[in-house]
Amino acid sequence: MECGLLIVLSGPSGAGKGTICKELCERNKQYRLSISVTTRKPRKGEVDGKNYFFKDLEQFQKMVEENQLLEWAKVYDNYYGTPREYVEKSLKEGYDVILEIDIQGALKVKEKFPEGVFIFILPPSMEELKKRIINRGTETEEEIMKRFKSAYDELNYISKYNYVVVNDDVEEAIKKIESIIIAEKCRVDRNKEYYLNIREGLV
Amino acid sequence: MECGLLIVLSGPSGAGKGTICKELCERNKQYRLSISVTTRKPRKGEVDGKNYFFKDLEQFQKMVEENQLLEWAKVYDNYYGTPREYVEKSLKEGYDVILEIDIQGALKVKEKFPEGVFIFILPPSMEELKKRIINRGTETEEEIMKRFKSAYDELNYISKYNYVVVNDDVEEAIKKIESIIIAEKCRVDRNKEYYLNIREGLV
Repeated sequence: MECGLLIVLSGPSGAGKGTICKELCERNKQYRLSISVTTRKPRKGEVDGKNYFFKDLEQFQKMVEENQLLEWAKVYDNYYGTPREYVEKSLKEGYDVILEIDIQGALKVKEKFPEGVFIFILPPSMEELKKRIINRGTETEEEIMKRFKSAYDELNYISKYNYVVVNDDVEEAIKKIESIIIAEKCRVDRNKEYYLNIREGLV
Repeated sequence: MECGLLIVLSGPSGAGKGTICKELCERNKQYRLSISVTTRKPRKGEVDGKNYFFKDLEQFQKMVEENQLLEWAKVYDNYYGTPREYVEKSLKEGYDVILEIDIQGALKVKEKFPEGVFIFILPPSMEELKKRIINRGTETEEEIMKRFKSAYDELNYISKYNYVVVNDDVEEAIKKIESIIIAEKCRVDRNKEYYLNIREGLV
């Protein structure tokens, strides 16, 4: 079976990454969302092993020490990480693994998986982003300002990514990401073996 | 208006480029097929200014001298070329221009348009390719052998292309090319201006 692609999605809070990832995975059975490990407390409705693997600080530190995390970071007083085994196993099974992580995490993953596909999700405008962060209603005013400032700073990292998708329309954004995944599988770099085989009459 | 992309499609005779190009342009109004200039005689049903711009040798040479051709080549005793003006005008008008040309031509275009998207169409197997060339029935036996040998040699050039699309199913091949075009428009390299503007609040 052919190995899947690792798709890394980042972008400022409020760009709409969560909705996009959820829809992508619901519509495409060959996509599998990576599940993060976190030390933060579950929010209402979040399920362990589905939304996150919830761990306490001691368990998390053990995973770090045993090199079980592809990347990890402290964000807003909590630790988050990507379990290496779950990602690698899914890729080998042929799934395209979608990793929704912040920029620090994405850059660390890029070091270990340069063959991954790095997609930056942009809000249609900074004005719209501010609205979306405020409308969420789950953040304190201080957190809103912190997130908005972060969003600005994060734009500097777009050039580290392969693709940028503007989320002014969720359907369009999803179609673009699906197209990126199809296109990446056609890249010559990823198909050397196939076309050498066809030349030798092995296909 | 945003500039279109130049999409260059090549691949051995019998890989199915013609059908794919025709379908792509019929289904996508923003795609426009580039029209070649040729000195070969029109085949039955071919229309000047639609299938080709048919020119005599003298007119063709004049276009070469006046640098009106993006590339030109002699293939099977006839001259073929790509009129620069038609391509550049279409791109500026926002069309994605599809150029179906042989490999020599594609490589010359790549020198002048490195930002083009270069797609190699492969037959599902060399066995299948042979069948297709024979079933065409429009070639002499000598021509069939010549084309088949060319097809083998041409496989060496795949690495000069960005993408490879295996045409084992026309619908799938078309979907892949449409996806490649959508994906290419999302590439970070092609969107620097946009994300600089969004940062400055200009979008």
